[in-house]
Amino acid sequence: MLIQVEDAADPRLADYVRLRDMDLRKSLESEHGLFIAEGEKVIRRAVGAGHPVRSILTTAKWVGHLVDVVDETTVYVVSDQVMAGVTGFPVHRGALASMGRTALPAVAELLGRVRRIVVLEDLVDHGNVGAIFRCAAALGVDAIVLSPRCADPLYRRSVKVSMGAVFAIPYARMIDWHGGLAEIRAAGFRTLALTPDQSATPLDEVVMAERVALLLGSEGDGLSSHWLKEADRSVRISMSPAAMELGVDSLNVVAAAAIACHGLLRR
Amino acid sequence: MLIQVEDAADPRLADYVRLRDMDLRKSLESEHGLFIAEGEKVIRRAVGAGHPVRSILTTAKWVGHLVDVVDETTVYVVSDQVMAGVTGFPVHRGALASMGRTALPAVAELLGRVRRIVVLEDLVDHGNVGAIFRCAAALGVDAIVLSPRCADPLYRRSVKVSMGAVFAIPYARMIDWHGGLAEIRAAGFRTLALTPDQSATPLDEVVMAERVALLLGSEGDGLSSHWLKEADRSVRISMSPAAMELGVDSLNVVAAAAIACHGLLRR
Repeated sequence: MLIQVEDAADPRLADYVRLRDMDLRKSLESEHGLFIAEGEKVIRRAVGAGHPVRSILTTAKWVGHLVDVVDETTVYVVSDQVMAGVTGFPVHRGALASMGRTALPAVAELLGRVRRIVVLEDLVDHGNVGAIFRCAAALGVDAIVLSPRCADPLYRRSVKVSMGAVFAIPYARMIDWHGGLAEIRAAGFRTLALTPDQSATPLDEVVMAERVALLLGSEGDGLSSHWLKEADRSVRISMSPAAMELGVDSLNVVAAAAIACHGLLRR
Repeated sequence: MLIQVEDAADPRLADYVRLRDMDLRKSLESEHGLFIAEGEKVIRRAVGAGHPVRSILTTAKWVGHLVDVVDETTVYVVSDQVMAGVTGFPVHRGALASMGRTALPAVAELLGRVRRIVVLEDLVDHGNVGAIFRCAAALGVDAIVLSPRCADPLYRRSVKVSMGAVFAIPYARMIDWHGGLAEIRAAGFRTLALTPDQSATPLDEVVMAERVALLLGSEGDGLSSHWLKEADRSVRISMSPAAMELGVDSLNVVAAAAIACHGLLRR
């Protein structure tokens, strides 16, 4: 159903208000169990992953691209100006969809059906979370487990940076950070804690196992000492001998995740 | 010299105005040949790389951390409120420095003294440029060459994401995009164009050479067809067989750069 809306303050557009305001969005999205998908390709992938469409917000120019999705949902058609007025920025990808969240699998259930996982502890940057989902999907990781405080994969920026990979790879969120790693180990995973620490085992030398969990820590501080201590092994990415002299002693978490997934998880 | 400033509109703070406003900053920074370094560590690295300090902006709480740098320069000391009023956001790392740019080496001069380089064509995202500098420095790349339109490594976000690596690794900017790659080839570099194209040679199988240039394209479209055609070889990163089924057919440019630098350039 197509509905023309002329006013950025129209309450029917409430799902899309001020998409740039992270704090506002976080509470709005969790309270209403929604998230925003941006652009035709990502919207289609979210629909394909089973998320219900609450509504679509687009301009006259782009309605045609979503005509088959449109059939089943409410579509608000606005001018470019109203679009920018509602969201807080010009929307270049033509369409936004407000989607309903679906229940995540429990960690235990997910662990039972996968062999290669990445575990993210307290990453705060949505772009990093999205980029790691994309890497994981591209490089053969079966699933991702998030610590309780890790940033939301369905936040707009995560979804966008992941290019929709957040809908392609299953994930679950731990309820208990303190006991979370023990649960993964108890499920038969060899847990490898990635660290820049030079005394850790180089990735290429680490002993593999049937089931492997690669642990990645937060942007500033890396993995917590609790998880580092509990993991089966600390592993590191070999760097250039000159790097230390240059004052560069680590990689960013996306680069580290990419190298580790490429080199390790596909062995 | 310490100077207390009480007013965010004080013209002496002009270098630091509205750091979040990319368009304003781009013209201001190029016109005045300046850039902004953020946080004690990065400021020290910029100074160490030979950049002259124009001034420092900080709060009373943080002055002590920069006491030796402070000696030689003008330091504006402001309240947290004035700081946020000038820059447009709260500054958590305590200090900002306005630094003078220094002349970059010419591409030909730089090529004469290095063996392993990364060439960036038209990357638009400053965070990506910074992250690739960090990867390059960590993984043994000797230098970086930028296309004429590639984003500025000294833009605040680039510097920040690079963790100062933009001051650790030499770089140059081409004047001529069209003939730029030919110049690199003529200097004796084997040019490898990174692409998601499945018909390209997998990285691990590519023939190495004494001098190697890894070419990386822009975020949306990858390398231009002109460069792809002119490069000695198209190379790809091997992905999971399942990735295509998941609808993930490429990696983001930072992840790709990290894997390629790690796997290829250190051989």
